[in-house]
Amino acid sequence: MKIEHIGIAVNSLGTSDDLFERLLGKKNYKQESVAREGVTTSFYEVGESKVELLEASSEDSPIAKFLSKKGEGIHHIAFGVDDIYAEIERLKKEGFIFISEEPKDGADNKLVVFLHPKSTNGVLIELCQEKA
Amino acid sequence: MKIEHIGIAVNSLGTSDDLFERLLGKKNYKQESVAREGVTTSFYEVGESKVELLEASSEDSPIAKFLSKKGEGIHHIAFGVDDIYAEIERLKKEGFIFISEEPKDGADNKLVVFLHPKSTNGVLIELCQEKA
Repeated sequence: MKIEHIGIAVNSLGTSDDLFERLLGKKNYKQESVAREGVTTSFYEVGESKVELLEASSEDSPIAKFLSKKGEGIHHIAFGVDDIYAEIERLKKEGFIFISEEPKDGADNKLVVFLHPKSTNGVLIELCQEKA
Repeated sequence: MKIEHIGIAVNSLGTSDDLFERLLGKKNYKQESVAREGVTTSFYEVGESKVELLEASSEDSPIAKFLSKKGEGIHHIAFGVDDIYAEIERLKKEGFIFISEEPKDGADNKLVVFLHPKSTNGVLIELCQEKA
């Protein structure tokens, strides 16, 4: 397991890409829209991990709701795992609750699931696995 | 640069150490108090990064204030750098604002400084360097 990425909700990728380029001293390596989630993402490599900026692309998307409720800031942590199905089974046995137990296609060629923050100290946690 | 750790504010290390042991499938590798910051920390290795749980040890500490205002959740991201003084100079030239520009001793044998979240998209960012 590793920290695959940290997801940060931003009002504007234009403004925040400029900010994170200067902060991290490098350009993003991709921008990608995930229509199903109503989000446009921008990715930066940081060591073995990534920073993922998240801008809402529709008004009723989870990111739009997060931004209107809490403002800009860290949205989730994603742990990268080798076998997402085995990890879901392990964590269910440990009593963790998933928002949805079926992995879906996420950004950056990943299968993803989210644990419910009520079972994880208020932290929205994603598990993700690189797709074959 | 790498993600050195993610700091998570928790009400009780007793409860949250149990939770994160089950989540990450491993025990913490240390617990450490930082009296000056009014905090007790617990560290877990995750790949090249760490998860740092933060419990307030005094009522007027930054973590106690964060918990009473926002509740449990992600408190900061720490980027590990080789030369913290050079990185502070670079980021000041880029227009970033620091809470304090002078590195201080932090937990886990580190020199640490914090950027002001107003200059970093609402994200509290720490820079840290391993002490010699």
